[in-house]
Amino acid sequence: MSVLDSVTPQLEQLAIEVPSWAYGNSGTRFRVFQTPGTPRSVREKISDAAKVNELTGLAPSIALHIPWDKVDDYGQLSDYAQQQGIRLGTINSNTFQDEDYKFGSLTHSDAAIRNKAIDHMYECIDVMNVTGSRDLKIWLADGTNYPGQGDMRSRQDWLQESLRKVYDRLGDDQRLVLEYKFFEPAFYHTDVPDWGTSYAQCLELGEKALVCLDTGHHAPGTNIEFIVAQLIRLGKLGSFDFNSRFYADDDLIVGSADPFQLFRIMVEVIRGGGLDPASNIALMLDQCHNLEEKIPGQIRSVQNVQEMTARALLVDRQALTRAQEAGDVLGANAVFMDAFYTDVRPGLAAWRESRGLPGDPMAAYQASGYQQQINEARRGGQQAGWGA
Amino acid sequence: MSVLDSVTPQLEQLAIEVPSWAYGNSGTRFRVFQTPGTPRSVREKISDAAKVNELTGLAPSIALHIPWDKVDDYGQLSDYAQQQGIRLGTINSNTFQDEDYKFGSLTHSDAAIRNKAIDHMYECIDVMNVTGSRDLKIWLADGTNYPGQGDMRSRQDWLQESLRKVYDRLGDDQRLVLEYKFFEPAFYHTDVPDWGTSYAQCLELGEKALVCLDTGHHAPGTNIEFIVAQLIRLGKLGSFDFNSRFYADDDLIVGSADPFQLFRIMVEVIRGGGLDPASNIALMLDQCHNLEEKIPGQIRSVQNVQEMTARALLVDRQALTRAQEAGDVLGANAVFMDAFYTDVRPGLAAWRESRGLPGDPMAAYQASGYQQQINEARRGGQQAGWGA
Amino acid sequence: MSVLDSVTPQLEQLAIEVPSWAYGNSGTRFRVFQTPGTPRSVREKISDAAKVNELTGLAPSIALHIPWDKVDDYGQLSDYAQQQGIRLGTINSNTFQDEDYKFGSLTHSDAAIRNKAIDHMYECIDVMNVTGSRDLKIWLADGTNYPGQGDMRSRQDWLQESLRKVYDRLGDDQRLVLEYKFFEPAFYHTDVPDWGTSYAQCLELGEKALVCLDTGHHAPGTNIEFIVAQLIRLGKLGSFDFNSRFYADDDLIVGSADPFQLFRIMVEVIRGGGLDPASNIALMLDQCHNLEEKIPGQIRSVQNVQEMTARALLVDRQALTRAQEAGDVLGANAVFMDAFYTDVRPGLAAWRESRGLPGDPMAAYQASGYQQQINEARRGGQQAGWGA
Amino acid sequence: MSVLDSVTPQLEQLAIEVPSWAYGNSGTRFRVFQTPGTPRSVREKISDAAKVNELTGLAPSIALHIPWDKVDDYGQLSDYAQQQGIRLGTINSNTFQDEDYKFGSLTHSDAAIRNKAIDHMYECIDVMNVTGSRDLKIWLADGTNYPGQGDMRSRQDWLQESLRKVYDRLGDDQRLVLEYKFFEPAFYHTDVPDWGTSYAQCLELGEKALVCLDTGHHAPGTNIEFIVAQLIRLGKLGSFDFNSRFYADDDLIVGSADPFQLFRIMVEVIRGGGLDPASNIALMLDQCHNLEEKIPGQIRSVQNVQEMTARALLVDRQALTRAQEAGDVLGANAVFMDAFYTDVRPGLAAWRESRGLPGDPMAAYQASGYQQQINEARRGGQQAGWGA
Repeated sequence: MSVLDSVTPQLEQLAIEVPSWAYGNSGTRFRVFQTPGTPRSVREKISDAAKVNELTGLAPSIALHIPWDKVDDYGQLSDYAQQQGIRLGTINSNTFQDEDYKFGSLTHSDAAIRNKAIDHMYECIDVMNVTGSRDLKIWLADGTNYPGQGDMRSRQDWLQESLRKVYDRLGDDQRLVLEYKFFEPAFYHTDVPDWGTSYAQCLELGEKALVCLDTGHHAPGTNIEFIVAQLIRLGKLGSFDFNSRFYADDDLIVGSADPFQLFRIMVEVIRGGGLDPASNIALMLDQCHNLEEKIPGQIRSVQNVQEMTARALLVDRQALTRAQEAGDVLGANAVFMDAFYTDVRPGLAAWRESRGLPGDPMAAYQASGYQQQINEARRGGQQAGWGA
Repeated sequence: MSVLDSVTPQLEQLAIEVPSWAYGNSGTRFRVFQTPGTPRSVREKISDAAKVNELTGLAPSIALHIPWDKVDDYGQLSDYAQQQGIRLGTINSNTFQDEDYKFGSLTHSDAAIRNKAIDHMYECIDVMNVTGSRDLKIWLADGTNYPGQGDMRSRQDWLQESLRKVYDRLGDDQRLVLEYKFFEPAFYHTDVPDWGTSYAQCLELGEKALVCLDTGHHAPGTNIEFIVAQLIRLGKLGSFDFNSRFYADDDLIVGSADPFQLFRIMVEVIRGGGLDPASNIALMLDQCHNLEEKIPGQIRSVQNVQEMTARALLVDRQALTRAQEAGDVLGANAVFMDAFYTDVRPGLAAWRESRGLPGDPMAAYQASGYQQQINEARRGGQQAGWGA
Repeated sequence: MSVLDSVTPQLEQLAIEVPSWAYGNSGTRFRVFQTPGTPRSVREKISDAAKVNELTGLAPSIALHIPWDKVDDYGQLSDYAQQQGIRLGTINSNTFQDEDYKFGSLTHSDAAIRNKAIDHMYECIDVMNVTGSRDLKIWLADGTNYPGQGDMRSRQDWLQESLRKVYDRLGDDQRLVLEYKFFEPAFYHTDVPDWGTSYAQCLELGEKALVCLDTGHHAPGTNIEFIVAQLIRLGKLGSFDFNSRFYADDDLIVGSADPFQLFRIMVEVIRGGGLDPASNIALMLDQCHNLEEKIPGQIRSVQNVQEMTARALLVDRQALTRAQEAGDVLGANAVFMDAFYTDVRPGLAAWRESRGLPGDPMAAYQASGYQQQINEARRGGQQAGWGA
Repeated sequence: MSVLDSVTPQLEQLAIEVPSWAYGNSGTRFRVFQTPGTPRSVREKISDAAKVNELTGLAPSIALHIPWDKVDDYGQLSDYAQQQGIRLGTINSNTFQDEDYKFGSLTHSDAAIRNKAIDHMYECIDVMNVTGSRDLKIWLADGTNYPGQGDMRSRQDWLQESLRKVYDRLGDDQRLVLEYKFFEPAFYHTDVPDWGTSYAQCLELGEKALVCLDTGHHAPGTNIEFIVAQLIRLGKLGSFDFNSRFYADDDLIVGSADPFQLFRIMVEVIRGGGLDPASNIALMLDQCHNLEEKIPGQIRSVQNVQEMTARALLVDRQALTRAQEAGDVLGANAVFMDAFYTDVRPGLAAWRESRGLPGDPMAAYQASGYQQQINEARRGGQQAGWGA
């Protein structure tokens, strides 16, 4: 019997979407280091993602990024994924790597550029129609570097106008999730810098527009779990982009910089009913494995989310409420910390084994020979990356 | 002829409300230093505020803080202010200095405490009904210091429920302005920590609920002028609490820490039509003169706002738009900076003199003998302060 | 047999000094809440501190603060402490609550004020001579609120000159520890704002001058464990002031805001030999129990330090070094995290019981009736506080 | 007669070194945008830098970056620069773009990698011996992304050991300037993260080792002018890398994000005697013109430094000291701000014209046809960039 027995049903619901780009190379403006075995094609990325799911049982879908993952036939790609045991998930648009977007995309002062960006979104929706993806994720690099460079106010209006056109193209079961980011690549103002802006824009659009919360996209000191609680309360949390950070948008492995913060976030997700599939809150990773190995990095990541979810599920809600209502500050905090400090790792290993999964996915990966195999097989060709 | 001739009509519209508490003592948790001449009563605060207006022509009203400025007869107080040449403005509520509010006020888990806080708001509205004040300003110290101490989600619901009761008591021409603050005095979570929360709460309440933006209440690096532009766009900017900061909520003299930021804020106020009286955006100061002299500190403050407004009005909008649309980053920035670097001080001195005001209000204050007079007169009694 | 068996000898060395002021009232500039049972005298603070040590075996000494803990006879006070089972520790100076220090103390432009502050330091050394305390801790509130207010450069020279006089008065076995702080109560510049300044000043003074690192006194994002490693390497880490924070100098319970950070700090302390009594690195608490109960708050605090020390001791150094040298990023991190995630609480409970201490100090405190007793006994009188 | 007459002699001393890489392309990890006219060779960079100096009289030297500016014959390059009217300045090393440096360079756990990096430094010194450059600038990307990844303490020791070898190779008139940086590209710990570390390392090395202060490399809220004052006081400020930022290391045009901060920095430079050529404090730019035109961006930058230096020179030191000593907070601040708000632009235009320079360098550049000429001439080839 494990400490996790009582929470197993909820743990079963946990599904984390992995990003195709996590398997390609990434880095900083100073250097993108290469690693052996890096995929050269979308199919190779899918294989890697399938391996993560095979070993962890946690990652049944993979997000695509257009145009990085552009293929001729998305139906075939979808079939390929299914054969590998996973499915295609969220479609991520990209309006930050074309010369035309130097000064903005959906917010550009020139309608022609805005229309070009809108057309790209249409293209993404076309892909979704084939893949059966529910979500179009829009992250905009739009912003300015110098005061006066752009008219922030007009750009908000253009943003709404552009998003409206995209929104109106969505199918009945499709959604638009609008990601916000504090800064980078824009260094003075960013057009969607905070949850308030994404919320206000989505509210104006309608029910199918929701906020995407990337855990690395906030000002220093921001209480992220509060935003989680608030957006769930407002019915506007569409999805998470999980990662972690010490400084800016570091894109480190989720839970690695501040595990207690991830715990607190999962507590609010659970508090708001976000683990319930009916909540339609997508849990995704968005990370950069600049230095560490990529597939093991993803295995570590989904396990981190699972471990913290397990701890968060262990919070004794009744005792917590009792202490809160009694004004017992230390008592309430103790209930909270007790869950965080509980070592759920043995329980999760047992749970995995009971489902026919390896007890230690990382060790199983090392033993599988998969890495050696792809290191051998994937020689030559162009390693996938951001193409910055 | 002055560089300001073209913008004089708009400068004439500038009116800044001063806070009664700026004339009392303030400090930090380490020490509140006393200064000679500090008011012992509301009337003495009003006298000081009237002096600031007399010398600058910029500060026609004074905000009150209940219970710090509690009197028996607000009608008489209003008359007194009028005799001094100013009027009573915004009424500020206070639900952070009673033992009952240790764990929250409008957001407390105990309905009895929430009702006590609501009753205090009703009391403030009663005062407004007598003074003719338009705005009830609500800043809440509510929050928690430790993870688990309170249920953030329920507290949002209680907040809305409490605010609803207050809102429903407002007269037709009265408004509720809800201030947000990043942190302090709560050190883990704050119930109204960002503009998004204040906006969402006010939206749910209705048209008479608006956001109050205190320039010192943001996370490090936040682009405040963006929030200004956004809230004006959304029709939800009710008022400003002006001050400045290097670190946290330092409450320094507005424009003293980052004059260029104040300029950028005023540019967006003007861009959004916020100087137009019809916009109903209240410009208020909220500062602490911990070390500097208080009345001169207020004179300096209103002049800083005026000087930056003048500079902001000088932005050549046509040239700016032209450069923006041409993607001329440096050209657009140069138009912007040219206005900021223009020395408007001689023009403003001339403008003051043309209206019968002293060209140099600070020198006029020093020459007036007012400070010596109050230093003499205000001996004994209890100097006003926060009573923390 | 416990996972802690191998590290017990090192755990035995752990001793944490508690601050007398943690038992008095504290708060923010907005409000200082009172609590029943709060000490009215130094002796009552010593009783409370002795209770913490009695139940945890971790807190054998108490730091005093002059003048808050001023008494006529420090010899008698020392005897009293000994009877209670603890001893008097570090003497903390206070040059921030006198009107004369409004614009600085050891850094004031007026030599008379500097001399007054130096005299206060001499007084503290006199106390140390009686109590047998080793350390004089100097934290300065000195700084300015507005650019131009003071001459930062001259103030550094005055600081060195003043500290030199204090330093020269130290006995052979006495030390001066100079604390740095990022900001507050000064809001523009602080005279000792960072470890570099404290280090440079202490280096110039000599061997008996060392840096005090308060874990809450850094800019957002600062890697504190790096500073710990660096100062130990340079032989200049004199002491810690432990607490934790989410925003500014929140003075929350150590380990409560970011337990993983406390773990990393303790890892570097151990890595540098700082647990060895010969290292002479003092581990102290410096916290404010604004909302929570004070004695339980201190019990929680010393246990947090103990628990994280235990975890840090569990790091498998050999495996870690092996992974580091192999460039195995995930492997090295996994060794690190494995120690952090190990639940040491049962092992520590057993260890406590083996030494005749209560397995659960918090429960033992609740059962002891001590709180009820002091709530009864300590009615009337002036509750201790900061006297701000 | 101009307000600047009294400070002209000091303004004459102003010389700002421009970086060769400012003329090449730069960007973020998301995208590096290309611009017409971008240099394809070191000589073309030198031509552009010479143009900036020709029009402003402020930028007599250019810093090189090895290997980005590697040529076969540095003597010829030096001659070429001289013919263009400028000289070669600081040599910047690069140990962050080779696969070997993935886990560190001078701080790597493997002595072979450290030696490779040391050899690169030797190569840079060889270049200096030919070009007659005084300074070797070392900025290290060294650090780690995950707790546990490296041993911070050992890396400090290795750093000192490596730097010692480089230091010992310096000629009598050569210097090593060690730059610190808060974070990026390392996201957990950086080996030289703050001025304290650079100072401690340089102190151990000796007199020819000095600190390089990059104005964009600090934690949010850091008082940079304090560090300037401190390092000058300690005799350890070797050079500046000027740029500005709103968030992280944004590398924007110096003075564009917070002009008042640049003013305060220049005030401390002047206060410490740093404009005196005998101080040997090098003023350099280190910026990225991601979006704006590069040559105009550099013209704007050196003018910004000049304008703020002029303002800083206008501070009435006697009046300031008087107010400071009198505890006149507002008076002292007013003296300070008066200098900042003085419009020095007309005076500087006149000064330029009196020296045979164009009154408006930016207009002169636009009129010169240089940009059109290089846009034409520099077609084909590989535009210079970071080669990330």
